[in-house]
Amino acid sequence: MNYIQTMASRSKAARPEIANASSVQKNEALLEIAHALRRSKAEIIAANELDIKAGQARGMSESLQDRLRLDEKRIEGIASACEKLVALEDPVGEIIGGRVLPSGMTLRKVRVPLGVIGIIYEARPNVTVDAAVLCIKSGNAVILRGGKEAINSNKCLMDIMRRAVKLAGFPEDIIQLVEDTDRGIALEMMQANGYIDVLIPRGGAKLIQAVVKNATVPVIETGTGNCHAYVDATADLGMAVRIVDNGKTQRPSVCNALETCLVHRSVAEDFLPMLKKKLDEHNVEIRGDEMTAMILGEQNVTPATEEDYATEFGDYIIAVKVVDSLGEAIEHIGKYSTGHSEVIITESLFSAEEFQKRVDSAAVYVNCSTRFTDGEEFGLGAEIGISTQKLHTRGPMGLKELTTVKWLINGDGQIRK
Amino acid sequence: MNYIQTMASRSKAARPEIANASSVQKNEALLEIAHALRRSKAEIIAANELDIKAGQARGMSESLQDRLRLDEKRIEGIASACEKLVALEDPVGEIIGGRVLPSGMTLRKVRVPLGVIGIIYEARPNVTVDAAVLCIKSGNAVILRGGKEAINSNKCLMDIMRRAVKLAGFPEDIIQLVEDTDRGIALEMMQANGYIDVLIPRGGAKLIQAVVKNATVPVIETGTGNCHAYVDATADLGMAVRIVDNGKTQRPSVCNALETCLVHRSVAEDFLPMLKKKLDEHNVEIRGDEMTAMILGEQNVTPATEEDYATEFGDYIIAVKVVDSLGEAIEHIGKYSTGHSEVIITESLFSAEEFQKRVDSAAVYVNCSTRFTDGEEFGLGAEIGISTQKLHTRGPMGLKELTTVKWLINGDGQIRK
Repeated sequence: MNYIQTMASRSKAARPEIANASSVQKNEALLEIAHALRRSKAEIIAANELDIKAGQARGMSESLQDRLRLDEKRIEGIASACEKLVALEDPVGEIIGGRVLPSGMTLRKVRVPLGVIGIIYEARPNVTVDAAVLCIKSGNAVILRGGKEAINSNKCLMDIMRRAVKLAGFPEDIIQLVEDTDRGIALEMMQANGYIDVLIPRGGAKLIQAVVKNATVPVIETGTGNCHAYVDATADLGMAVRIVDNGKTQRPSVCNALETCLVHRSVAEDFLPMLKKKLDEHNVEIRGDEMTAMILGEQNVTPATEEDYATEFGDYIIAVKVVDSLGEAIEHIGKYSTGHSEVIITESLFSAEEFQKRVDSAAVYVNCSTRFTDGEEFGLGAEIGISTQKLHTRGPMGLKELTTVKWLINGDGQIRK
Repeated sequence: MNYIQTMASRSKAARPEIANASSVQKNEALLEIAHALRRSKAEIIAANELDIKAGQARGMSESLQDRLRLDEKRIEGIASACEKLVALEDPVGEIIGGRVLPSGMTLRKVRVPLGVIGIIYEARPNVTVDAAVLCIKSGNAVILRGGKEAINSNKCLMDIMRRAVKLAGFPEDIIQLVEDTDRGIALEMMQANGYIDVLIPRGGAKLIQAVVKNATVPVIETGTGNCHAYVDATADLGMAVRIVDNGKTQRPSVCNALETCLVHRSVAEDFLPMLKKKLDEHNVEIRGDEMTAMILGEQNVTPATEEDYATEFGDYIIAVKVVDSLGEAIEHIGKYSTGHSEVIITESLFSAEEFQKRVDSAAVYVNCSTRFTDGEEFGLGAEIGISTQKLHTRGPMGLKELTTVKWLINGDGQIRK
């Protein structure tokens, strides 16, 4: 057995304890974890400081350092997120279907945990706790593999959590951290068929593509968002400006931020100057087609390339294109979108319904910001990621999405004729 | 674009027509297909004859020839299966959740087709029609890649079906056949990310493992079944014999057939001779552990190897092992099972509940045959396969399992603060 198979065998051995635990016992583990994190702030910050210093020595960018950093306030935030999970409904054991079959057997379809979940992520140590507690609440064992930049923080957090779950009466191995951050070990994880039931990558497009490409274990592809707004001929242009501005500038680095604005030709001349004025407040760079350049002035617009339309900028950059029709907008989205979130701004019922019917993305909005695509905003209470594939689920994934089903059939001697 | 990308682009272009079609229109396509198949029996049988002759020339086994053969009766069966789908509820468009969010936006979670489904299968030409009509009813475009042994039959069936869907007002490209049966083309299909949404392999363990190993497109692993029966200390031994015999001998080649029988030590001496007597009627070979050999006589038992316990025989062979406890049985199943179907025969409520709780398989039975794991038996009406992975779904997959979800959010200018 290789490194991961050995680890995962321990997960598999511990799995029944967490899979069959009562909600009360699982909630106790969450509270123990929250308590332990609060009590260990100094210890966590010291470990985190090692990662920050190592990062600085390697010339890590300020923004990466910011993602990596844990301070008192952030640790408090992580701890109270654990506590919030306690109030959420436990998905495990729900009977989601059933009947008495003609031969007299009873059939029940029940919700059960996925089993052993693998999570591969980058340098955000908060994911270490987030992911672990979501898996615990949904009855799963989990193997976490974070970026090497956060290894000291992650080891410290994992030690604290393992002690806490033990206090709550669980085997420590329901949560495990891959301490060897070699790439070969990540590959072992992706190919641990029969050991890991599902793999969820969390992070940038590169990480996710690497996992999708190399994994033989089932994967949920998450969070690549090349999101579009389409400003229809009938749009309330003031509303359109607010929605596009919110989508682009409120938090440009996240996956539900807007990347491209499509504008109907008949309103482009009015709308684009209004939009530019608003986006100028954040110095947003506009990459537009010829018509956009003609309307806004060539000095204000970088010519958009094919690649710009396919890019998730994650930055204060927006691609703009003037289109002739709703159909052209839908076609553009079909060609370039990653299937995350798209919005139409329109006053036309027909356009709204056509757009929601024909755009094949996880979340399709009418007259509101794509920034709402989020488990908490949608009322799921918490979120492990946003699925941009169609298998298993699409869009925000909460506790229910960390489960699968099991069919239970009870008879009294029935055989098949 | 490669061969499959070109094909799949046509599927993608046709997808909206089938995805947004009414149930009435989709049912019309099914009836047209059934009608066309009946009208074209002679044509189909002639094409099939070419495949059979080519197979005979290559020395194809009798049983493979039987799988490949289409006669009047089988074509009639295929046609009436199409008609049966008409009565099934259309899963598309079902609103499976929703609410008004605090900010006033309305949120709806609706069921939509998966999109473009790829199906890779072997030499059973009936799958060509089965899979196509299930995809049509569930609003999906489909690309079918059958075994080269059935290529003439498949081409003929596909021609007939494409003409029929056109008559019903659909673009022909909602169903397509990969006519080039080169292995390289199958590989293109497995890696057509962005073109094919989901891949479903149907066939033997080898085919399925090849797809799981090579695919970067999301896969639903189906139908590998190393199924177990456990005869508990409290079992009704007569019932146990009937259930094990039914599981093993009623149709040994299918995935829900039994492969291993575990027996509690306290009843082994009574049970095993009863079982052997019954299995002798079908000349079932027993591969057992030492205790089994001791009870049944060494001349009657082939010594079971580690590999025997891990093998899906698909034949008149059964592995037998005497265990000391329910826990040992559950552990054995956890180690060797493919997660398909398992059964306990017991009169103990505790044993039944423990077994159903701790065995991590798609279908877990108490006192009835594993042979019931089947979409039709479970009341799903039809089945595209039996999922043995946990992602997306587990167990029999009907029309609902060929769908995903889409979130629709309607507001009046809401932005995120």
